[in-house]
Amino acid sequence: MDNKRLLNTIKSPDDLKKLNKQQLDILCTQIREELISTVSKNGGHLASNLGVVELTVALHKNFNCPEDKIVFDVGHQCYAHKMLTGRLDKFSTIRTKDGISGFPRPDESKYDAFIAGHSSTSISAGFGLSEAMQIKNEKGYVVAVIGDGALSGGLAYEALNNAGRSHDNLIVILNDNKMSISKNVGAMSRYLAVIRSRPKYYKFKITTDKIVSNIPLIGKYLRRFLFGIKSGIKSVLYNSTIFEDMGFAYLGPIDGHDLDKLDSILTLAKTMNRPALVHINTVKGKGYGFAEKDPNVFHGVSSFDVDTGERISGGDNFSDEFGKTVCEFAEKDSRICGITAAMCESTGLSEFKNKYKNRFFDVGIAEQHAVTFASGLSISGLVPVFAVYSTFLQRAYDQIIHDAAIQNLKVVLGIDRAGVVGEDGETHQGVFDVAFLNSIPNVTVYSPCTYDELKADLNNAVYNNSGVCAVRYPRGKQPKLPDDYKSSGAAYDIYGDKDASVAIVTYGRIFANCVDAYKMLKNEGISVKIIKLNRIKPIDKNAVNEALGCDKLYFHEEGMKIGGVSEHFASLCYENGYKGSISITAINDVFVPHASVSDTLKSLHLDSDSIYQKIKGECGLCQQ
Amino acid sequence: MDNKRLLNTIKSPDDLKKLNKQQLDILCTQIREELISTVSKNGGHLASNLGVVELTVALHKNFNCPEDKIVFDVGHQCYAHKMLTGRLDKFSTIRTKDGISGFPRPDESKYDAFIAGHSSTSISAGFGLSEAMQIKNEKGYVVAVIGDGALSGGLAYEALNNAGRSHDNLIVILNDNKMSISKNVGAMSRYLAVIRSRPKYYKFKITTDKIVSNIPLIGKYLRRFLFGIKSGIKSVLYNSTIFEDMGFAYLGPIDGHDLDKLDSILTLAKTMNRPALVHINTVKGKGYGFAEKDPNVFHGVSSFDVDTGERISGGDNFSDEFGKTVCEFAEKDSRICGITAAMCESTGLSEFKNKYKNRFFDVGIAEQHAVTFASGLSISGLVPVFAVYSTFLQRAYDQIIHDAAIQNLKVVLGIDRAGVVGEDGETHQGVFDVAFLNSIPNVTVYSPCTYDELKADLNNAVYNNSGVCAVRYPRGKQPKLPDDYKSSGAAYDIYGDKDASVAIVTYGRIFANCVDAYKMLKNEGISVKIIKLNRIKPIDKNAVNEALGCDKLYFHEEGMKIGGVSEHFASLCYENGYKGSISITAINDVFVPHASVSDTLKSLHLDSDSIYQKIKGECGLCQQ
Repeated sequence: MDNKRLLNTIKSPDDLKKLNKQQLDILCTQIREELISTVSKNGGHLASNLGVVELTVALHKNFNCPEDKIVFDVGHQCYAHKMLTGRLDKFSTIRTKDGISGFPRPDESKYDAFIAGHSSTSISAGFGLSEAMQIKNEKGYVVAVIGDGALSGGLAYEALNNAGRSHDNLIVILNDNKMSISKNVGAMSRYLAVIRSRPKYYKFKITTDKIVSNIPLIGKYLRRFLFGIKSGIKSVLYNSTIFEDMGFAYLGPIDGHDLDKLDSILTLAKTMNRPALVHINTVKGKGYGFAEKDPNVFHGVSSFDVDTGERISGGDNFSDEFGKTVCEFAEKDSRICGITAAMCESTGLSEFKNKYKNRFFDVGIAEQHAVTFASGLSISGLVPVFAVYSTFLQRAYDQIIHDAAIQNLKVVLGIDRAGVVGEDGETHQGVFDVAFLNSIPNVTVYSPCTYDELKADLNNAVYNNSGVCAVRYPRGKQPKLPDDYKSSGAAYDIYGDKDASVAIVTYGRIFANCVDAYKMLKNEGISVKIIKLNRIKPIDKNAVNEALGCDKLYFHEEGMKIGGVSEHFASLCYENGYKGSISITAINDVFVPHASVSDTLKSLHLDSDSIYQKIKGECGLCQQ
Repeated sequence: MDNKRLLNTIKSPDDLKKLNKQQLDILCTQIREELISTVSKNGGHLASNLGVVELTVALHKNFNCPEDKIVFDVGHQCYAHKMLTGRLDKFSTIRTKDGISGFPRPDESKYDAFIAGHSSTSISAGFGLSEAMQIKNEKGYVVAVIGDGALSGGLAYEALNNAGRSHDNLIVILNDNKMSISKNVGAMSRYLAVIRSRPKYYKFKITTDKIVSNIPLIGKYLRRFLFGIKSGIKSVLYNSTIFEDMGFAYLGPIDGHDLDKLDSILTLAKTMNRPALVHINTVKGKGYGFAEKDPNVFHGVSSFDVDTGERISGGDNFSDEFGKTVCEFAEKDSRICGITAAMCESTGLSEFKNKYKNRFFDVGIAEQHAVTFASGLSISGLVPVFAVYSTFLQRAYDQIIHDAAIQNLKVVLGIDRAGVVGEDGETHQGVFDVAFLNSIPNVTVYSPCTYDELKADLNNAVYNNSGVCAVRYPRGKQPKLPDDYKSSGAAYDIYGDKDASVAIVTYGRIFANCVDAYKMLKNEGISVKIIKLNRIKPIDKNAVNEALGCDKLYFHEEGMKIGGVSEHFASLCYENGYKGSISITAINDVFVPHASVSDTLKSLHLDSDSIYQKIKGECGLCQQ
C-alpha cells in the first residue's frame, strides 16, 4: 500500500493500535499533509492542529476511546482526532454547511467526549466525566488536553483546585507551545518557562518509579510516599511545581513530538491513581515551515496558498478600522488604554500595542479579569477600551454588571464578531450580546453598519456617553450601501419612503440587506421606510415615534429574538399606543450551526430576498 | 475620656494614627462591641468583620487613604473600615433603607476605593488601580484584602497571573481564616494549611531583609537577588510558595490579630517595589464566643440575641424546602448529584451533603466551574442539581450557554434568592436571571410561588424536561395565598374572574400581591383575571391565548423589564393578533438599592396597593 493509503486504512483507533513505530511516523506525516491541504482550502485552525499530531496519535494508542474520554480544550486542536476516529472521508467538509464541525461535538461522533469552542473548560468538564465514572463505578481514564494559553483562564484554575483533592483517573495534558498567547503575558507563562527547562525531576521520577513500582506489595505505597503531596523528597531533589502544590502528580516536561517519550509518560500517568498533569513541549505549526515561523498568522486562517504560505487576503475589515480609530484617540488622549484577552492581532490592537506600550494590556484568556481590571483603571480616571469577540464577552457578564455598570464606570467595549460568524459555528456565534447587555442598567450599545458609523460610535463611547458603552461590529468588511444613504451620526436614521405606512426596523450590517429589499419592493410599487438604529440601547424616543405612525412594523434582527431589540422596541411602541401589527424576524430560541455567513443569514431569513419576499407577500396586495 | 469615647473621637484615619498601642487595643475592643451591637439589631455579616478588626486598624495606621487605596474583597469585611472613616455616626443605619450600605461604595465615601459584593474581584480591581497609578505617575499603594475562600474563584487567579509580572505597589492581604468555605474544599485550601504552619521562612526573610536593606547602594539589588523569582536561596531555605511562583513577594504567615506583627509586616511589604502577598491568620468571629464557635452561622445573620447568641428564627423557607425535595429525589434516584459553590448551608443542601456524600460537591466559590463540571456529570448520564443564588449565577452565564445548553444537557439549576433580596442591595439583587436565561435556547425556567409549586417544578426539571432547567425561588418563605387558589401544576393557572377583559400577567411570589389587588378591585366591582405563570420559559401558547381575549393586559414582574417575561409575552400576544393595550410594571433599567424586601417591592410599585391603584385608576371608570 502507498503512504496515502495508510491513513485511509484507519477507520477507528483500534486500527491505529496495530501499527509499528515506522508506520506511526508515516501516519503522522500523512495527517499533516491532510491538515495542510484541507485547511488551505476550507480555512480553520492550522498551527494548533499541526502541533498535536504526535500527541493525538499517542493518546489513541494508549487509551481506549470511547470508554476512555479525551476532552480537547478550545476544541480547535481536534482535527487529527477527527481523522483517526472515522471521519477522514468527511474531513474535506470541515467547517462547511452540513459538513463536520471544526470543534468536537458529541452529537457528531461517540469519540468526541465534550464540546469545546471556548477556552479553559477541559479540566472542569473532564473532572465531571471522571467523577461520574467514580459514582457509576466505571473503569476508565479521562484525558483533558489544554494549552498553556488556556491555562490563563480562571475556569481552568477553579477546576484544578477542585480536582486536585480527588483520586480520579484524570490526566491533564499541558500542551505547552509557548505560542498560544503573546510571549510576555502572565506570571503562569513565565513560570512554565522556568519549569520547562528542568527535565531532571521527571527523569529521576520515571526511573525511580519503575524500580519502586516493581517492588511487590509495598511498591504502590512506597511510590505514594516518595511522590505524594507531603513528601519532602521532591522538594529536596527538585522544586515542587504549582501543579503538585495543587494536588496533581506532575510529569514532564518532555518533547511532545517524540512518540516513544509520549508512550512512556502516558503509561506512567495511567498508574498514578490520582490526577496527573503531563507537561509536553510542542511546536505550534510543526511540520509546515510557514506556520512554524509565523504561528499566530496560522492560528486561525482563511484559505491560503500551500506553496507560498500566502493567505487569500481578506482586505479591509471592522477590526482594523476599530484598531486605527482607537489609536487616533490614544494619540491625542493619554487616558485611553487598550485591553485584550489574548486576541491582540485578531481584534486589531497590534498598532496600539506597539505605539502605546504602557497603556496596552494583554491580560491572558481572562475576560472576567479584563472587565474588572478595566473598571479599576476607569475609577482612576482612565478610559479603558476592551476589544473582545462577542462570544467571549459572555464570560464577563457578571463583571459588566457588578464591577462596571453598578458603579457607572466608563468602560468601552469594542465587541468584535458581533452577529453570526460563519464557519466557527454554534460555540462562536456573536448573537447573545445584544440580549444580555439589554437588561443591564448604565449600559449604552451601538451597532454600526459602516466604518464611518463605527468611528462616530466609538467617539460617542469615549467622549459623550457615561457608564459602560459597547460598540459592536461584525466579522469582516462593511457592506455596500447606496450613495443616497448618509448616516446622520444620530441614534437612528430613516431611509426610504419617509411617509410609508410600512416600516422595517433594523440595525447593524443587515441594514444593507433591508436596503436591497426596499429597492426591490419599490420597483414593484410597494412603499417602505427603514428605521435604521445606530444606538440600540437605550432606544431613542423619536425612533419609537417614527414607528407609531405606521400600520405594519417588520423587525429584522441578527441576534436572539427573546430579549433582543425587536421585542423591546415593539413593547415601547405598544406601551405608547401603537395599534398596528408587528412581525419579528430574528433567531428564535435556537443555536445557529456553522455555515458561511451568507448561507447562515439566508437560513435565518435575514438575506435581502427573504426580507423582500416576506414583506411583498403580506403588503403587496393591499398597496397595489 | 471614657473608653466608648475613644472610638467616637476617630473622625478619619488621621485620628487613628495618633493613638498608642494601648489605645489601639482599646479601639479594637470598642469596634467589636459596636459590631456585635449593631449587627445583632440590623443583621449583616458578623463573623468576617470580627476577624479583620486588627487588620483594618493596622491598614489605616500604615497607609494613607484615600491616596492609598484599600479594596475589600466580598466587601462584607468593611464594617470596621466604615467606622474608622467618618461613618460611625451612621453605622446604626447600615443595610437599612436610605442608610449606609453593607458593602464598600465609592459613592458613599472617598475612603471606599471600589465596590464589592461578589467574591474574588479585589486583586483584579486593585491591579487596575495600581496600573492607573503607574500610568498617571502617582505615588501610592493599593491594598487588596482577600479571604482564603475568595481565592478559590478563577477571577482571583486571573488577576494574580496578570499582576504577577508587574512592578506595582500592589499588596494583597490574604486573610486566611480557614473558615470561609467548608473545610474540605479545594486543593488551594489544603495548600494554605501546609504553608500556614511554616513561619520559618518569613522570620528568616524579615531579619535578613532588615540587614540587607540597610546596606547602602546595593541593598535594594541584593535583596532582589536573594528573594527574587529566580533566586535559589528561598528554595534552599524554604519551599517556594505558589504566590512566589506567580511573581508575588510572599510574606507570612503571621497572627492577624497581633497589631505589632501587622505593623512590621506591612512596613516590609511597602518596600518590595513589586506586588506582595501578605499571609495573615485570623479567627473568624474573633472576640464573640458564639461566633468563634459557629462562624458559619454568624457569617451572614439576621438579628440575634447578643447574650445567648440565639438568632431570631426565620422559620420555614424556600431554601430548606428545596433541599428537602432534592434529598427525596436522591433517596430514590442514584443519578441525582448536588452541587454548591461554597454555599452549602444557605442553599439548603446540608442534609444532602450528609446523606449523599459521594454525590455532593462543594466546588469552592467557582460558579463557572460548577456549571461546566455539572455538564460533565450530565453527559455521563447523571442529573446534577446546582443550588446557587441568582446573583452569583451571573458568573456562569457563558458556561450555561457553551457547556450545558448547546449540548442540550440536563443540568438543573436551583436558583435561590431570585428577585429582590433586601438589605444586601444592588450587588446582590436576583433580578437579572430571568432576562439572561430568556435568551438562551434549550433552557426551561420555572418560577414557583409556593413550596408545592417548587416541588412540582423540581420534579418537572428532573424527570420531565430536557436540557438546562432552572427553578427560581425567592429568599424567605412562601407568601400567604387564599384557599381558593390551587395550583394545577401546569405551565400557568388562571385565577379570578375568568371572563374579565382585564388581565394581570405575573409570576413568582408577587402573584400573592396581585391576588390581594384583585380582591380589592373586586370589592369595588372591577373584574380582573390573573394569568399566573409557573413556567416562564418557554411561554405556554395557551397562556398567550388567554391573554388574546382581553382588552387590557397588566404585566407585573419582579425583575428587569428589558428582556424579561413581560416584553416577550407581550410580543407573542401582538404577533398573534392582540389588539388591546399593555402596561408593564417591572424594574426599568435601573439598579435597585438596599432596603427591606417589602420596602423595595413598594418602591418598585410591585406591592398590593400599587397594583390595585394602578388598575383602579385606569379601569375603574370604564367598568363602573
